[in-house]
Amino acid sequence: MKKVVLGFSGGLDTTYCVKYLTEEKGYEVHSVIVNTGGFTREELDKIAVHAKTLGVTSHTTVDAVKGYYDRIIKYLVFGNVLKNNTYPLSVSAERLVQALHIAEHVQKLQADAVAHGSTGAGNDQVRFDMVFHIMIPNVEIITPIRDLKLSREEEISYLKSKGVDMNFEKAAYSINKGLWGTSVGGKETLHSKGMLPEEAWPTQVTKTGSEEVKLHFEKGELTAVNDQSFEHPSAAIQYLQTIAGAYGIGRDIHVGDTIIGIKGRVGFEAAAPMVILKAHHALEKHVLTKWQLSWKDTIANFYGNWLHEGQILDPVMRDIEAFLQSAQANVTGDVFVQLQPYRFQVTGIESNYDLMSSKFGKYGEMNSGWSGQDVRGFSKIFGNQTSMYYQVKKDVEGAAGN
Amino acid sequence: MKKVVLGFSGGLDTTYCVKYLTEEKGYEVHSVIVNTGGFTREELDKIAVHAKTLGVTSHTTVDAVKGYYDRIIKYLVFGNVLKNNTYPLSVSAERLVQALHIAEHVQKLQADAVAHGSTGAGNDQVRFDMVFHIMIPNVEIITPIRDLKLSREEEISYLKSKGVDMNFEKAAYSINKGLWGTSVGGKETLHSKGMLPEEAWPTQVTKTGSEEVKLHFEKGELTAVNDQSFEHPSAAIQYLQTIAGAYGIGRDIHVGDTIIGIKGRVGFEAAAPMVILKAHHALEKHVLTKWQLSWKDTIANFYGNWLHEGQILDPVMRDIEAFLQSAQANVTGDVFVQLQPYRFQVTGIESNYDLMSSKFGKYGEMNSGWSGQDVRGFSKIFGNQTSMYYQVKKDVEGAAGN
Amino acid sequence: MKKVVLGFSGGLDTTYCVKYLTEEKGYEVHSVIVNTGGFTREELDKIAVHAKTLGVTSHTTVDAVKGYYDRIIKYLVFGNVLKNNTYPLSVSAERLVQALHIAEHVQKLQADAVAHGSTGAGNDQVRFDMVFHIMIPNVEIITPIRDLKLSREEEISYLKSKGVDMNFEKAAYSINKGLWGTSVGGKETLHSKGMLPEEAWPTQVTKTGSEEVKLHFEKGELTAVNDQSFEHPSAAIQYLQTIAGAYGIGRDIHVGDTIIGIKGRVGFEAAAPMVILKAHHALEKHVLTKWQLSWKDTIANFYGNWLHEGQILDPVMRDIEAFLQSAQANVTGDVFVQLQPYRFQVTGIESNYDLMSSKFGKYGEMNSGWSGQDVRGFSKIFGNQTSMYYQVKKDVEGAAGN
Amino acid sequence: MKKVVLGFSGGLDTTYCVKYLTEEKGYEVHSVIVNTGGFTREELDKIAVHAKTLGVTSHTTVDAVKGYYDRIIKYLVFGNVLKNNTYPLSVSAERLVQALHIAEHVQKLQADAVAHGSTGAGNDQVRFDMVFHIMIPNVEIITPIRDLKLSREEEISYLKSKGVDMNFEKAAYSINKGLWGTSVGGKETLHSKGMLPEEAWPTQVTKTGSEEVKLHFEKGELTAVNDQSFEHPSAAIQYLQTIAGAYGIGRDIHVGDTIIGIKGRVGFEAAAPMVILKAHHALEKHVLTKWQLSWKDTIANFYGNWLHEGQILDPVMRDIEAFLQSAQANVTGDVFVQLQPYRFQVTGIESNYDLMSSKFGKYGEMNSGWSGQDVRGFSKIFGNQTSMYYQVKKDVEGAAGN
Repeated sequence: MKKVVLGFSGGLDTTYCVKYLTEEKGYEVHSVIVNTGGFTREELDKIAVHAKTLGVTSHTTVDAVKGYYDRIIKYLVFGNVLKNNTYPLSVSAERLVQALHIAEHVQKLQADAVAHGSTGAGNDQVRFDMVFHIMIPNVEIITPIRDLKLSREEEISYLKSKGVDMNFEKAAYSINKGLWGTSVGGKETLHSKGMLPEEAWPTQVTKTGSEEVKLHFEKGELTAVNDQSFEHPSAAIQYLQTIAGAYGIGRDIHVGDTIIGIKGRVGFEAAAPMVILKAHHALEKHVLTKWQLSWKDTIANFYGNWLHEGQILDPVMRDIEAFLQSAQANVTGDVFVQLQPYRFQVTGIESNYDLMSSKFGKYGEMNSGWSGQDVRGFSKIFGNQTSMYYQVKKDVEGAAGN
Repeated sequence: MKKVVLGFSGGLDTTYCVKYLTEEKGYEVHSVIVNTGGFTREELDKIAVHAKTLGVTSHTTVDAVKGYYDRIIKYLVFGNVLKNNTYPLSVSAERLVQALHIAEHVQKLQADAVAHGSTGAGNDQVRFDMVFHIMIPNVEIITPIRDLKLSREEEISYLKSKGVDMNFEKAAYSINKGLWGTSVGGKETLHSKGMLPEEAWPTQVTKTGSEEVKLHFEKGELTAVNDQSFEHPSAAIQYLQTIAGAYGIGRDIHVGDTIIGIKGRVGFEAAAPMVILKAHHALEKHVLTKWQLSWKDTIANFYGNWLHEGQILDPVMRDIEAFLQSAQANVTGDVFVQLQPYRFQVTGIESNYDLMSSKFGKYGEMNSGWSGQDVRGFSKIFGNQTSMYYQVKKDVEGAAGN
Repeated sequence: MKKVVLGFSGGLDTTYCVKYLTEEKGYEVHSVIVNTGGFTREELDKIAVHAKTLGVTSHTTVDAVKGYYDRIIKYLVFGNVLKNNTYPLSVSAERLVQALHIAEHVQKLQADAVAHGSTGAGNDQVRFDMVFHIMIPNVEIITPIRDLKLSREEEISYLKSKGVDMNFEKAAYSINKGLWGTSVGGKETLHSKGMLPEEAWPTQVTKTGSEEVKLHFEKGELTAVNDQSFEHPSAAIQYLQTIAGAYGIGRDIHVGDTIIGIKGRVGFEAAAPMVILKAHHALEKHVLTKWQLSWKDTIANFYGNWLHEGQILDPVMRDIEAFLQSAQANVTGDVFVQLQPYRFQVTGIESNYDLMSSKFGKYGEMNSGWSGQDVRGFSKIFGNQTSMYYQVKKDVEGAAGN
Repeated sequence: MKKVVLGFSGGLDTTYCVKYLTEEKGYEVHSVIVNTGGFTREELDKIAVHAKTLGVTSHTTVDAVKGYYDRIIKYLVFGNVLKNNTYPLSVSAERLVQALHIAEHVQKLQADAVAHGSTGAGNDQVRFDMVFHIMIPNVEIITPIRDLKLSREEEISYLKSKGVDMNFEKAAYSINKGLWGTSVGGKETLHSKGMLPEEAWPTQVTKTGSEEVKLHFEKGELTAVNDQSFEHPSAAIQYLQTIAGAYGIGRDIHVGDTIIGIKGRVGFEAAAPMVILKAHHALEKHVLTKWQLSWKDTIANFYGNWLHEGQILDPVMRDIEAFLQSAQANVTGDVFVQLQPYRFQVTGIESNYDLMSSKFGKYGEMNSGWSGQDVRGFSKIFGNQTSMYYQVKKDVEGAAGN
């Protein structure tokens, strides 16, 4: 009997896949769920029970939170990556980690095929397909939902006919939760105009007033919050999320380019990610040189876009990571952030590597390391070529005028 | 008698310059003030009176608001330029327009020298020096404050000795206002930590609740607000500022690289600029292609940095402007923004050029222009090279393992 | 009867397509050949006769040489585009112009389908497919050679069975000639090692000794060679080719990334293109500013790669062209080039816009526009931030050492 | 008595400096010469004798060849760095290594001052000044030639008056030799037009005919030539130079932007560097992915320009080096190069990491890892957004036309 490994979330589509692969295709189905921070222990247990009830041969739960951070999120922080200056790539990043774990599971089980529940209209199909083509190139990829183009109703009716009992109600919004943020799609996001209503956000605002948090970074990684240290940055992120999430911070709507060309709009809430990215960037602005900041922006922009498009395995990504890692050598210090309902403000930093040290002079007020005469010479030389350019131009135009 | 043109703001430093140039250096002083949107008619008149009282031979007021927009701000909007993803370059941009107008004034008066009141510790000295070196290369540049390194007290005592009567009190914060935002420096901004207190902000928050505004862009330029059209985008910006400013929107602190190498920290409030930049970017995300968005970011980042460093006259800036202008062909439509105290949210757009049109399918839900089979082929080819890369790597490592 | 427009070269593959489309598929075939400079009048006439003999309903010859230059080559010159610093994109560029003309022909004839003779292993299939998807999105694309995966022998045997009489012999090398160079593939290029033998090059070396040519550029375009003016730059290119080609200049082998992921190796000869690109670049190095040169490189690199991948219709290409056009404002002057068998050397330029004017000083010898003191100040400020960086680093490390 | 460390070449300018610093300024002069591959043992000994005769307190010879390679040239090879696609940065690179060694010597001797013999018209003054400002910020920098603006005749007459006996004849060309190439300036290079005559080149052409060399790279570094291994890549470079130099390979004239704004023209011969750079790049084109090649170009371009401008100590250079190092992981293999008088041709490569492996299909001929159907889908999706762009545009224009 041929084995297939199925990426399984317990939702309608992947539930359909279990039954379809088992009963219509005669596969031995091995379901796997990769937790990237969005599921509680209870939810994972429920999903496991559901999988078993559906008749899978084996069901595996992979706890990928730390690896997700180490492999991807770390670099998103180093690069201050926000797609189109807006979206922390919450879903894009975690889909790739899931695909990588599923591919490993296929290798381990020496399965004949791998299946995922993506439709033909989104990004995820490309991310799964591509990681599988690369990691397990000779394994067949089966995508029932995409290939059969089934409607929701058809899936439900098929499952009912197979005696499956589950909650068939369609949620008002499709929600995807993970360590690096939660996406919220549906209704308003399906059009170019319209904001999600208050009740659509998974994390409701429960705090008022204002609160300061202190984030400690070591070589670019968040290691402590309010002087509380964590054994792994992923735990620090989760802790900060409990603090900042309750303020409704980091909510926004993003419209972006999908891999397949259409524009897609999605709401997201990402309190901890947004606070961390802005705090990290603020610290970098104090400790890095001008061209470090500039090149980090350029290169990290590409990193984010290429990751979004599923290209995490292109070796150029390793090269960029080497650059980003090198640039974090001095990104160590504390960042102070004021949290308030729906917004936050970085209020300052403290770092031994701070280049804004008063011993070098104070911007606009005092120059101790150089003289006005030095700047006078600098200005002359700094504009020297453009000055020549205008003199040459004037000569040509003057000559032409005669 | 030798003529000097002096950039004049009416403050302590440039007041000192008038007296110093006239009485110590024997110059005929022609003062000029270039209004880039920060002064009212009354303020300008008062400054003119002050100049005359000090004994200048002529005083000229240049209304540069429209030209400032046409020459610089337009492109900052096209490029969604925020220095280090934070600061709209409020001061950097206007200083250059001022320098350009002063240089023109020097040419018109055929003056022997040009003077500015910059210290040796900031960016402005470089901007003024450099524009003068380029535009009026043979005109002497005089910078009394920088060269003499006078203290505030010394300046005051000199002026008093010359019978000058003016407000000698030092403001708690140094404020610079213009069409594209107001900077606020002093106390907290002189250190790496600390936020400006509520009372330091020139525009106080007077509105509560929430309000929607509709911004209309034509080829990237703001031409109407809430269906009210303006003869020039600069007027639209000023109108939007009256609406959004009262919410305390667009306040932040930026730490950045000065031209001369030190890090400088400055507070700013820029309600209209921040709303316009985010609204414009949102519209672009709907109407431009992926690589237009990507290259605009890269190139506009440089544009902003190079402008900040005073290099507006480098011809590469014209080339970049040609790129940015070309990219605005379809950036036409309405953008909806929700304003609230201290924050705002772009809630959607309407544009005939919107590429997120439901006729092409709905992201994640429906694909009408292509098939799942097409995407399957795409994914295979899109990851083809990386797939080969891993196969080759495996072969080498496998061989090495034997 | 359904109409199909077929891109027709007269070779085995497209000859097969005519018969297949007519006799197996029942189409009315309208063949079209787009001359981008590679065919003589006689060759085009022969191809027309061949098409008619095969039974096409109509055959059209499009003379696209000027348009090819105006639409693409001009910008490749402006950008000094050499893919991977080697290959002038001879074939990539012309394939797109051919696709665009074929698409126009489809629109004109209101054809139901369009056909091309590409295999499934190269770049051209993507270029044709993509231009057709964009320009004529609802027209069916038929690709018999790709879809049927026929061997050469099968094609010949089919054609013979249909009574077709033509030269069925396989050339030792596959050659593609056009205005912007000639590619040569086969034998040696199919492997990673090995150079094409002398006899494989379509243009044999017939000149010895050495010869100077003078190229005149107006705003970046070649308008005269040795003081002989041409009504269109494409004619100047062809004239220069007759001079430089006979020296065997511009031969090389390129290995590059195909659109579909594999690496491909191809020989090419491109005497006029290589001489023009290097001459144009030399002129630019004299008349453009440092950052114009730098940004042109970056942006033109992408332009060349994206063009190579068939993306000529992405609007970002128009934006880049606007940049490149703007940068050519002063690229006017004469360039002197020494030609010799197998090599050439740019020996100098003359231009009114030359920024290397002795009136500004002589590099390394004399400084007339600034003083040593100015440079001293410049050096201090230019390294100011890095100097602070090291002082801060030393402090931290010193403190850590205690 | 105050100590000064003087960078000493034994030429007229630095000879003048010794006497001037000793006799006019009362310094104890410690001369140092840093050999970056341009001097023989005999030349260095002669220079030492000359220094002693002039009366220096100490003279030190630093052999910096290996360190020069390890610190800079390695990365220039990794990045295939040619300034403006022409010049291997022969002089720029070695000047920085010299400055770094001189600064170390200052620290070791705890000298009060450092001196160099640069004029005010070239790049070297900035490179020396800047490295000194950064590495030894509190040490006075003395530049007699720049500051006194002495003519050659004045220097000679002064030295004669001090009884100095040396060759005072001016060479027809100023030559600077080092491991990474030799620059040749004078006469023709002082103007925009004119090639150096045959006799001006330091290495004369003594070989005829043709010769193949095989270069072996390990992770991007040249480790063997024609199967002869070297303990350090710098020795391999020197060995290759003896082979290729005699063919007159790698001669060219470059016009480039100096740090101080003027354009400078310089001849150079760099046989080994040019062969190595092109061979290395050829190998990379076979083993790296498309985006590795593309980003390497972009980032290495900046690296070369920034190095040229003396900014080797900016930490961003370390970050770029980390990127470049990472990208060399698979750059291992043999490259075959045909040498002939005045030219060379890379004829192929052999590498286990070659991505142009026939097992993946042959470009243009055979596709074994994917189907024509896959490419069809790819083309559709790859052009999907631009296709939508044109449909939207047509709708708007159609509507506008009504």
